Amino acid sequence: MKQTIGLIGFGVVGQGVYELVSRRSDPGITIKKVCVRDRLKKRSLTPGKICYDLDEVLDDDEINLVVEVINDPDAACYIAEKALITGKSLVSANKKMVAERLPAFRKFLAGNGTAMLYEGSTCGSIPIIRNLEEYYSNDIFGSLSGILNGSANYILSRVFGDGMAYKEALSQAQLLGFAEADPRLDVSGEDTLSKLVILAVHSLGKWVDPSTVFCSGIQNLRPADIQYAASLGMKIRLTGNILRSGKGFSMFVIPWMMNRDNPLYHVENEYNAVVLEGEQCSRQVLTGKGAGRMPTATAVMSDIDARTSGYGYRYRKFLNGSGVEINGEKFLNIYLRTGSEEIIRSAGFVKKGDLRKSNGYYIFTGGISLSNLTRIRKQLDESGSFIALTGFDAGDD
Amino acid sequence: MKQTIGLIGFGVVGQGVYELVSRRSDPGITIKKVCVRDRLKKRSLTPGKICYDLDEVLDDDEINLVVEVINDPDAACYIAEKALITGKSLVSANKKMVAERLPAFRKFLAGNGTAMLYEGSTCGSIPIIRNLEEYYSNDIFGSLSGILNGSANYILSRVFGDGMAYKEALSQAQLLGFAEADPRLDVSGEDTLSKLVILAVHSLGKWVDPSTVFCSGIQNLRPADIQYAASLGMKIRLTGNILRSGKGFSMFVIPWMMNRDNPLYHVENEYNAVVLEGEQCSRQVLTGKGAGRMPTATAVMSDIDARTSGYGYRYRKFLNGSGVEINGEKFLNIYLRTGSEEIIRSAGFVKKGDLRKSNGYYIFTGGISLSNLTRIRKQLDESGSFIALTGFDAGDD
Repeated sequence: MKQTIGLIGFGVVGQGVYELVSRRSDPGITIKKVCVRDRLKKRSLTPGKICYDLDEVLDDDEINLVVEVINDPDAACYIAEKALITGKSLVSANKKMVAERLPAFRKFLAGNGTAMLYEGSTCGSIPIIRNLEEYYSNDIFGSLSGILNGSANYILSRVFGDGMAYKEALSQAQLLGFAEADPRLDVSGEDTLSKLVILAVHSLGKWVDPSTVFCSGIQNLRPADIQYAASLGMKIRLTGNILRSGKGFSMFVIPWMMNRDNPLYHVENEYNAVVLEGEQCSRQVLTGKGAGRMPTATAVMSDIDARTSGYGYRYRKFLNGSGVEINGEKFLNIYLRTGSEEIIRSAGFVKKGDLRKSNGYYIFTGGISLSNLTRIRKQLDESGSFIALTGFDAGDD
Repeated sequence: MKQTIGLIGFGVVGQGVYELVSRRSDPGITIKKVCVRDRLKKRSLTPGKICYDLDEVLDDDEINLVVEVINDPDAACYIAEKALITGKSLVSANKKMVAERLPAFRKFLAGNGTAMLYEGSTCGSIPIIRNLEEYYSNDIFGSLSGILNGSANYILSRVFGDGMAYKEALSQAQLLGFAEADPRLDVSGEDTLSKLVILAVHSLGKWVDPSTVFCSGIQNLRPADIQYAASLGMKIRLTGNILRSGKGFSMFVIPWMMNRDNPLYHVENEYNAVVLEGEQCSRQVLTGKGAGRMPTATAVMSDIDARTSGYGYRYRKFLNGSGVEINGEKFLNIYLRTGSEEIIRSAGFVKKGDLRKSNGYYIFTGGISLSNLTRIRKQLDESGSFIALTGFDAGDD
């Protein structure tokens, strides 16, 4: 099927996509228009191709595939909706838009000849959505844990590998183009959360409102936390998790203090990795670059290519209404550094471990349910506390 | 598309496939006949389903999908040919058959409504062929290195992780059902070679006669080799490789003495892993169980499932006649333990490193081209020598 593309966005990823399409020089894939925002910026594009109005792309009947690679989730949502209503397919790399708005597109997902593909939204170059859809969907889903943000992982790699200070590592990640336009999304875990929500749709078949998911990031990481982890031979990784708990699953984003037995321990720099457990396929680990121009552009390109053969996600579990329960029952062992004794006392820790005090803060380890942890999330954030998962009790799932 | 299956073979994998199909209880996928060899063995199957004659399956017009999970490559080839000629599709887990005979099936591969799928032949549960076909095929292939045999990796894990003797580890792998019916295929590298040839078809688009590929295994691994590697903090992994060399690529199977910077170092037990480098996607690592009942059965099941939506490999590069050159130019740094001074002298090593003698054998390190190494392959085997790759010269590709 011939793809006549309207490319919306010409930033780092958009330019990469443009380059890949040009290099391919496949008569079946052409970019008819490139929609950009800034009229003043000089661009290396044929002037006739450039436009500044989204609707010029969306109202063009010749364009049958809209490729959207912009940052703004509201504009992305407008684009997605109008594209699908007018019978165009959509390739998007906008994780926030997909994660937050997917249910609004439900009526377009059943496959009426158009499709919405978004491999580039999640884990850069790793073909994780396609594999969850096409390969692992036969299996009974067990669990998923992953490093889903290349920028945060780059920072943690510098901090644990090179002893660099957190702020210096963050600046370096920005310099190298790994960080999002707003790096707060990377380090706060919000970007990881968007991806986790997308992965849950394709693994569990369940959409979960991101605002209801526990999410803690690395923005409060301090030298004391790094020293604590390093003294135990551990590293910290920012992770998204979907784990069996009781009769359902618990979902959460959390820094994980882990040892070398965890496959995520070995994932360095801007790499992402997803550890899947299926009842039949057992543990699978997929690793690849999660940030940067080409890793994301190549994922977008593979979606464009998939449209040439009419491919669309099947959403088998999602459209059939997966009865999976998402709960807060999972019991987590936690490392907590906080200035607030009140948090430790009132949070509902049931297995209290170590408590040390030095330099005005407490370092505490203990066990707590995800729902209790969620209750104190705001206090944790506001008090500059840092928490990390240290493990699960044996036999607990 | 409804799949009426004739299952040929009811060993470890066949029983797993039968169980998965039964558990699914999808009216679109039924097993009509199960063909077995041994008439005397008791089986937990409805008697009407069992047959003993291959042609009873192959001549059955209701059967549109033959699932072949037997060991004998000659019988597998007969099955594949007759199935495809009579318009049935084929799912096979027989790597030797696929690797050696694929060109004979070329006329059936162009997609005339039937297909030949063999995800279960290579790397057990890892969806490597499907990803090479569907996802990475947009990219410019750079290199591939993998642990492709779960049994050999299990043995090497016991030897390097637990200090177990080679023979004891081999027996344990057999006990656990990881080893092939004939474990020589696992440890000699021949099984790895079959898989490497299949991976080359789907990554380079080139079929290479397995008998022309350099292949060295771990059957001559001795305590001296293990001590040498361990003293340098290294482990040995049996690897299959497709690496850029000059204007083309070199292919070879070899034990690789590696340090922890290599992602394959961390792959333990019966796990397989494939490290891919693409020009755009950069390094990708896929890891999963490569041996055992369910990991292989689940890959076969995913092929069966893919047939319900009419999926077939596209062989884009292979059918278009990839002009890739396979050569022996790659320059390898080698560890060699041998009783024969003659081999060291005459092999054509150009960068001679260390030479030690103790207990009647020489331990030698040096650099050699793949073609020179291939020239002495027989001498190496016959003299009980052990070789391992230690690396490549910087800048050499």
